[in-house]
Amino acid sequence: MKKDEYIGILTSGGDASGMNAAIRAVTRTAIFNGFKVKGIYRGYEGLIAGESRELTTEDVSSIIQRGGTILKTARSEAFTTPEGRREAYDTMRKEKIGALVVIGGDGSLTGARIFAEEYPVTCIGLPGTIDNDLYGTDFTIGYDTALNTIVECVDKIRDTATSHDRIFFVEVMGRDAGFLAQNSAIASGAEAAIIPEDRTDADQLETFIGRGFRKTKNSSIVIVTESPGNKNGGAMHYADRVKREYPGYDVRVSILGHLQRGGAPSANDRILASRLGEAAIQALMEDQHNIMVGIHNNEIVYVPFDQAIKNDKPIDKNLIRVLNELSI
Amino acid sequence: MKKDEYIGILTSGGDASGMNAAIRAVTRTAIFNGFKVKGIYRGYEGLIAGESRELTTEDVSSIIQRGGTILKTARSEAFTTPEGRREAYDTMRKEKIGALVVIGGDGSLTGARIFAEEYPVTCIGLPGTIDNDLYGTDFTIGYDTALNTIVECVDKIRDTATSHDRIFFVEVMGRDAGFLAQNSAIASGAEAAIIPEDRTDADQLETFIGRGFRKTKNSSIVIVTESPGNKNGGAMHYADRVKREYPGYDVRVSILGHLQRGGAPSANDRILASRLGEAAIQALMEDQHNIMVGIHNNEIVYVPFDQAIKNDKPIDKNLIRVLNELSI
Amino acid sequence: MKKDEYIGILTSGGDASGMNAAIRAVTRTAIFNGFKVKGIYRGYEGLIAGESRELTTEDVSSIIQRGGTILKTARSEAFTTPEGRREAYDTMRKEKIGALVVIGGDGSLTGARIFAEEYPVTCIGLPGTIDNDLYGTDFTIGYDTALNTIVECVDKIRDTATSHDRIFFVEVMGRDAGFLAQNSAIASGAEAAIIPEDRTDADQLETFIGRGFRKTKNSSIVIVTESPGNKNGGAMHYADRVKREYPGYDVRVSILGHLQRGGAPSANDRILASRLGEAAIQALMEDQHNIMVGIHNNEIVYVPFDQAIKNDKPIDKNLIRVLNELSI
Amino acid sequence: MKKDEYIGILTSGGDASGMNAAIRAVTRTAIFNGFKVKGIYRGYEGLIAGESRELTTEDVSSIIQRGGTILKTARSEAFTTPEGRREAYDTMRKEKIGALVVIGGDGSLTGARIFAEEYPVTCIGLPGTIDNDLYGTDFTIGYDTALNTIVECVDKIRDTATSHDRIFFVEVMGRDAGFLAQNSAIASGAEAAIIPEDRTDADQLETFIGRGFRKTKNSSIVIVTESPGNKNGGAMHYADRVKREYPGYDVRVSILGHLQRGGAPSANDRILASRLGEAAIQALMEDQHNIMVGIHNNEIVYVPFDQAIKNDKPIDKNLIRVLNELSI
Repeated sequence: MKKDEYIGILTSGGDASGMNAAIRAVTRTAIFNGFKVKGIYRGYEGLIAGESRELTTEDVSSIIQRGGTILKTARSEAFTTPEGRREAYDTMRKEKIGALVVIGGDGSLTGARIFAEEYPVTCIGLPGTIDNDLYGTDFTIGYDTALNTIVECVDKIRDTATSHDRIFFVEVMGRDAGFLAQNSAIASGAEAAIIPEDRTDADQLETFIGRGFRKTKNSSIVIVTESPGNKNGGAMHYADRVKREYPGYDVRVSILGHLQRGGAPSANDRILASRLGEAAIQALMEDQHNIMVGIHNNEIVYVPFDQAIKNDKPIDKNLIRVLNELSI
Repeated sequence: MKKDEYIGILTSGGDASGMNAAIRAVTRTAIFNGFKVKGIYRGYEGLIAGESRELTTEDVSSIIQRGGTILKTARSEAFTTPEGRREAYDTMRKEKIGALVVIGGDGSLTGARIFAEEYPVTCIGLPGTIDNDLYGTDFTIGYDTALNTIVECVDKIRDTATSHDRIFFVEVMGRDAGFLAQNSAIASGAEAAIIPEDRTDADQLETFIGRGFRKTKNSSIVIVTESPGNKNGGAMHYADRVKREYPGYDVRVSILGHLQRGGAPSANDRILASRLGEAAIQALMEDQHNIMVGIHNNEIVYVPFDQAIKNDKPIDKNLIRVLNELSI
Repeated sequence: MKKDEYIGILTSGGDASGMNAAIRAVTRTAIFNGFKVKGIYRGYEGLIAGESRELTTEDVSSIIQRGGTILKTARSEAFTTPEGRREAYDTMRKEKIGALVVIGGDGSLTGARIFAEEYPVTCIGLPGTIDNDLYGTDFTIGYDTALNTIVECVDKIRDTATSHDRIFFVEVMGRDAGFLAQNSAIASGAEAAIIPEDRTDADQLETFIGRGFRKTKNSSIVIVTESPGNKNGGAMHYADRVKREYPGYDVRVSILGHLQRGGAPSANDRILASRLGEAAIQALMEDQHNIMVGIHNNEIVYVPFDQAIKNDKPIDKNLIRVLNELSI
Repeated sequence: MKKDEYIGILTSGGDASGMNAAIRAVTRTAIFNGFKVKGIYRGYEGLIAGESRELTTEDVSSIIQRGGTILKTARSEAFTTPEGRREAYDTMRKEKIGALVVIGGDGSLTGARIFAEEYPVTCIGLPGTIDNDLYGTDFTIGYDTALNTIVECVDKIRDTATSHDRIFFVEVMGRDAGFLAQNSAIASGAEAAIIPEDRTDADQLETFIGRGFRKTKNSSIVIVTESPGNKNGGAMHYADRVKREYPGYDVRVSILGHLQRGGAPSANDRILASRLGEAAIQALMEDQHNIMVGIHNNEIVYVPFDQAIKNDKPIDKNLIRVLNELSI
């Protein structure tokens, strides 16, 4: 990595809380080590269009506590085409951007992988997604904040559920991954979680209704991963089914939606983002490229893009047992 | 009010944060003044069925900070019938409940009013609803908490809106009343509020789209009162319309739903509930009956049930102007 | 007010959450009505030194939810001298600042009053202080946020107090005014409040110890206004006294300190600040000067500086009775 | 473990948020597996005195979200004496308590270790302390919540620090361990952390003052572990030193105190407590005894009491570098 070139940084895909902390860490560590940094706006769109500006240590002051991303983000159609990536490469050369730090989820890292195969560019990826679905890192930036936000919301919903003796189906994000649903269910004391990874959900629901709810007229919370991640459908689907099969129950649905993404990041997300951002620059100084910087067993790890993207990260099956035992 | 009889207390209709603080205040003030209290479960349903138990000062300890209602709540079909009210009256006599404090919204107070016309019962109402739509009181228990919850949610949604340059239509509760939408719009710095009281909403949206959004590609938040309160429909309706008329925009909907009801009450709701609960017992000691205890210009007021229920509480038109000026 | 001159805006004295919402409202309403605005840094210090810059609508975008003040604040020694005010006046003329909106507490408004007596300047004051101690306005900007922050802290402290059967003396801000202590005590279900306005505090403590605590070994929270507002001393003083007189008790002190000032403003503070900021410009357009814009019975009022500063705002004595009854 | 005996559970030492989630998990998992549970009040004090009662699944319902401990806690002088432990053993036999689950910090686990050496009792320890200072487990119950509480407080304090250009020394808990200070400093974007593990603090402060603050008049936050853990003294000591050596600076102290312990537990603390509580019963069923159940690399581990107590858990030195680089 030459010091007369810039390190470019961009955020891509869905926003996740903690992205700003990562931008701050990348920028400050780079400057601390004698590099210059350019912030690129709106992800790969801005990379193609050349929308960027130099970042100073002051530019990233007082952003560690803010949700969203000061660099904005987007999903780029153009970058999925060879022409788009050609333009992106030309812009990088014109703007003297010698390396790229990409903060995003699997779609964004896939883009980086293809780009790095086609052109002689150095890309470092940071896992930024609330879904926690990237292989090779125990946690992704934004996941802990989203998890806490969900739990705080369910705490509120439970007040109503208990006051009215209702069953609530609460739908959370996660796409194909049940991390948010599974863990928020345990943390909020929910009665069940319906997640994409566990195909026994239909039976579970049966058991749950039969056991927990029918015997003692009472309230219940079931957390459901959003559809289409859940092949059978989201919270609405299961609520309709219970209404149909158990007409006596007072069933409601709450779809938490986009408020799961934003808000001030949790302590963990700020620390994770700070460590990963710092490590991204360390990786560049070690001449690493085309890797995702992740965390595993509390140590920084370098994960080739291929692995991070292609492998599915499994749910801890023990958690299914824990939830099952604790919801009696 | 004779001291060998109980004061009954119940919560009815939709739960609102601060109801527990009111239960605590009624119970402790009553006991402080030498009365005995019975807590009645599940609103008028429990009144009819005789589901109640005596409350001590310890029973209401450490509940001031909790959402929901420890007495549970329900909407009672039976109490809307003469037979149901007959049973309720019989139960009250059998249980030696000499007066009734009802915490709820206009449906619940309407029930109390009819009951008190038919039978020689003493009813005191406390305004408990997040909608703030009761005439004769400046604030209802639960409104301030719901307002703060909405504002915190919109703060989070704005992180995403800003990061992605999106328009969000955020749907909030309120039924026929725009207090939550109007005030949360001002407090969250939203660009517009679409409320039932203001029939010019269609034009407003036009203006808003034409002025604020079209000229600078940017993010926007519009707060919408839920349908059917909004005759034209809720957030989904307006989002669809913008998508149809302005296909270039990235439009999303967020329906906040039941999380608006629960959660630890705000300081204001706890103080309001404490003052109103204390005043309910004062009112009983002054031989008041069939009134709602409210607050107006920071003073306790007694409002005949008729007035509280039949009159519409108007939105402050100045707030529409303020929102309009500040969203430029 | 001539439109070729600027409206200057500054924040002065202790920071209060909601000041940014007021800056936003003043700026946008001014621009909406055809005026230009200059933000002056660090209160009267910056007025004297000429540290200011023009504010656009974008400059005040996304600040409504932030604590502190983007204009910074200070207590100015220089401005208490005739020479300092002379310089300030000269700077205003040089910078073409035709009117001044001052957001601050009684010290800041006193400065504005003297300044306006000595020089032909137009000053509009907005009440910005967490202490709520300005006469003529029911609420000051920052008070509701501080009150909620205190209540959230006491909710946490009570977890420990209850788990350990301890007495906590919690010291809160307020200087000579007991609004924060009195209201947070009611809202947090504290057993007592020791406030400057009520000279019976010694007896109260006696009663409280004798009644509430001695009979049932249990936990207690007492909220105390900071010294020197409390003539006898703050939380530490009372804790020492109880330790001395009742050696068996497990007594702790918590001084909440500066975290009471900051944080995202509550919904009420944002709305209040928005309304007052908007009204400040309305007042200027009506050729008002040397008044504080306040709120009374939910209506905007204009209060001559003299009244706002010289009169003491009394505590609602009813609240003392309510607290007393509810802490049995 | 025989099923006609009870599993006793107690919380001991300082309270930590998440203890209730652990009590719930132990109780429900025990009942799920056919055991009976007795909750023992006020730690070892209640064990000696025989203050306990059987816990049902309903008794631990809706406590997962509450700070403190429903079983109360205490530091027991008596249990440090042979006579006290003799009585405790006799009570256990009389009450048919066949095994003991102890939730607490190193003092509490030391008590359990000695007790188990002297008498034929089965003790399982769960790490419950906000300080995170137990060897053999990556995290202790309560640590993540305290960390988030600190970070939220510092976010508020920074609003004031920035508005006034002040240096704040913020004192946090941790006793001899700097986990809370070090990690909250990174997460809150503080300029430095002064921790017991790092003896270079004096130089650091020198560097920090010389570098970060002197060159740009600005605000700063320094997080300091409480004294006597910090041999040189707490926040007050360092503030005094800076005031003395750099008289021009506006220096303030904030001691966060007991509010760090309470509050609703974070998602992570609830999950950790649920997993550890469940594992405690699994361990009993595997005939484990006199171990602490911990978590390491996201797996449940059994740690002999000796190891957990006697070894010091080291700070991750990388975090010192990260903080140093990011605070430029």
